[in-house]
Amino acid sequence: MTQFTRAKRPESSALQRALDRPDDAGLISLALGKPAPELLPAAEVQEAAQAVLLEGPSALQYGIPNKSLKSHIVQLMGLRGVECREDQLLLTTGAQQALALLAQLFLSDRSSAIMVEEAVYPGLMLATAPYSPAVVTVPVDLSKGFDVEAAEYALQTGIKPAFIYAMAVGHNPLGVTMNTENRLAMVDFATRNSLHVVEDDVYGLLQYEQRSEVALRSLCENWIFYIGSFSKILAPALRVGWILAPEQFIPALSALKEGLDLNTVTFAQRVVARYFDIHSIAGRIEYLERHYRRRRDAMHDALERHLKHEVRWCKPSAGFYFWVESDRFGDASELLEDAIANGVSFVPGRAFRAGKDKDFSNAIRLNFSQCPTESIEEAIARLAFTLRAKKHCVASQRA
Amino acid sequence: MTQFTRAKRPESSALQRALDRPDDAGLISLALGKPAPELLPAAEVQEAAQAVLLEGPSALQYGIPNKSLKSHIVQLMGLRGVECREDQLLLTTGAQQALALLAQLFLSDRSSAIMVEEAVYPGLMLATAPYSPAVVTVPVDLSKGFDVEAAEYALQTGIKPAFIYAMAVGHNPLGVTMNTENRLAMVDFATRNSLHVVEDDVYGLLQYEQRSEVALRSLCENWIFYIGSFSKILAPALRVGWILAPEQFIPALSALKEGLDLNTVTFAQRVVARYFDIHSIAGRIEYLERHYRRRRDAMHDALERHLKHEVRWCKPSAGFYFWVESDRFGDASELLEDAIANGVSFVPGRAFRAGKDKDFSNAIRLNFSQCPTESIEEAIARLAFTLRAKKHCVASQRA
Repeated sequence: MTQFTRAKRPESSALQRALDRPDDAGLISLALGKPAPELLPAAEVQEAAQAVLLEGPSALQYGIPNKSLKSHIVQLMGLRGVECREDQLLLTTGAQQALALLAQLFLSDRSSAIMVEEAVYPGLMLATAPYSPAVVTVPVDLSKGFDVEAAEYALQTGIKPAFIYAMAVGHNPLGVTMNTENRLAMVDFATRNSLHVVEDDVYGLLQYEQRSEVALRSLCENWIFYIGSFSKILAPALRVGWILAPEQFIPALSALKEGLDLNTVTFAQRVVARYFDIHSIAGRIEYLERHYRRRRDAMHDALERHLKHEVRWCKPSAGFYFWVESDRFGDASELLEDAIANGVSFVPGRAFRAGKDKDFSNAIRLNFSQCPTESIEEAIARLAFTLRAKKHCVASQRA
Repeated sequence: MTQFTRAKRPESSALQRALDRPDDAGLISLALGKPAPELLPAAEVQEAAQAVLLEGPSALQYGIPNKSLKSHIVQLMGLRGVECREDQLLLTTGAQQALALLAQLFLSDRSSAIMVEEAVYPGLMLATAPYSPAVVTVPVDLSKGFDVEAAEYALQTGIKPAFIYAMAVGHNPLGVTMNTENRLAMVDFATRNSLHVVEDDVYGLLQYEQRSEVALRSLCENWIFYIGSFSKILAPALRVGWILAPEQFIPALSALKEGLDLNTVTFAQRVVARYFDIHSIAGRIEYLERHYRRRRDAMHDALERHLKHEVRWCKPSAGFYFWVESDRFGDASELLEDAIANGVSFVPGRAFRAGKDKDFSNAIRLNFSQCPTESIEEAIARLAFTLRAKKHCVASQRA
């Protein structure tokens, strides 16, 4: 299993390589998890930056974690059903650093293991790779999310993971959200077995159904290490995220944070705090949900229109992604090349693979946050064209 | 030796705790390595941020490392005597992340060792602590800097370090700068023994004598992993630094960087790039050197005036610090408490300890960058008063 983790590293950097790709004029990208550029509040962030710098040079100096930002986060956590205190918060350089910190905290003992679903956010594998943990995988369940029964079963192998990685709401890449019953089962499972859960809730902040699903952390304080971020709801480039942890872990996490990049991204922290001094967090989230809901619906409708009989998917209730499966994909990595030639891109399922059993070559992840609805419609049409051309091509070869 | 590294962790966070301390109105701090607040260009950074955000929302989006910033860094490296290419650069979240990345790169094998001087920047120990390396220490040489002969001797123990950590110019905490002969010996030593050198040159960018000392990296391309930062020459809170490494290491470092916080601190990178599109780097450095030279001279003069017969020091030709030794300090950590009561603070030498032989309880580090010259004079007077009061107190106790 250790070997797998090492082998994974280069492949997962595929996302980064996609990011490095200059935007082709004609290409519609359904690949990355970028927020919509037109929903990024450049003018308002500019005002916040100006206000912060007018207060004097201290915003540019080394400084302590921003209190005002922490109070905004406490309020935001309320929207996720979570009661917490500022003393339980550690500010991080985005959610990715939160993962890196929790990996350091939990995996410094080299014999450690982690438990993840077979399809997992590659950034988690990158963050844990330096510690070469054994990787216990849980089969994917597209209907109810994290499969607690399977996890229960996996535990019988005798390997106790240092933590379980979970995305309860708006899973990346699967799009699935755990229902209440399953979420209760998860918390019960963790508590009963004294297992830490790293809850990555970056996408849980954006939900599209009437009833908003709360975070796992709202059900359990002792075992859940919650990760949040302003990347999807404000601006990725500011790199401001947080860990909400049992308070006794904050000093250790703080010392680890100092080792990674000191504890002082003062400027960006202050800009975010200032922004939310003026703009309501709930209002901002509602605004984004309204827009992203439309894009999600557009993608669902386009899939219905163009690919209903060829592929399977579930309409996600949160987050940024559709997980689409089809035996007709053949190897989705090869399909991607054809698709790019036809002006549309996505991430092949294989990029999210975290185990030896399934390679997800029959799956792709489609992002709906970045493109306007018209582009989504056009992109799915191109994808359908690509799939049919391929099928036709295979048929001709056989003939 | 491994045990030492673990034991060290909590203590080195003393610097962070000092940072967390709210500024007492009456206290003059000679403790931390902060740039002078009045030299931080808040208005100009504000202009740069505005210009960047007026270009549109892309500055807030995930993005690739900034090309324009890399070209500014190549130019800046020229001022350090170094010829390099953009392809050899990795942008980091400050110099501290550069240390964390190189620790990951070199120490992922658990049996690794590092070679450091007995007095070392605590951030290096924090960055390496998660890998629990063995620590080979080289005795401190206050006259010529890194003691290559002693390192040569230490190598005979049979432990080959994964890297040597060196601050060739403006050493933190020792203030010393390696002369040309010693620098050549260092490079020869590294090359002959195939040893990587992590050259932390954060302070080498600020020098106060007529002749500027070049970086080790100017003498050797293959073995030196150079670290630079804009924290001391522009603004710490933007957290923009870099690694200049042999090009073949850049992809691996890039993947590790993705694991730590993704590779996309777009906003701060663009702000720094924009700032230096408008303001000359050489001009900025000259400006800072002029001001910091005055502060250095003020501290030297004040030491001459108030403590000439009680303490020993060398006038530093670069960086932010005086290293001051005296048997009269007793335990400098205890002296600090008295000093704070008298309105002055410093960092006890012990905070920089990286070995078992010397604990540096007879040494203190004094920072001269943060305070105006009048405050430096007053601070040293208070330090002298503290030392004499202590001496008097000891004398009374004996009587």
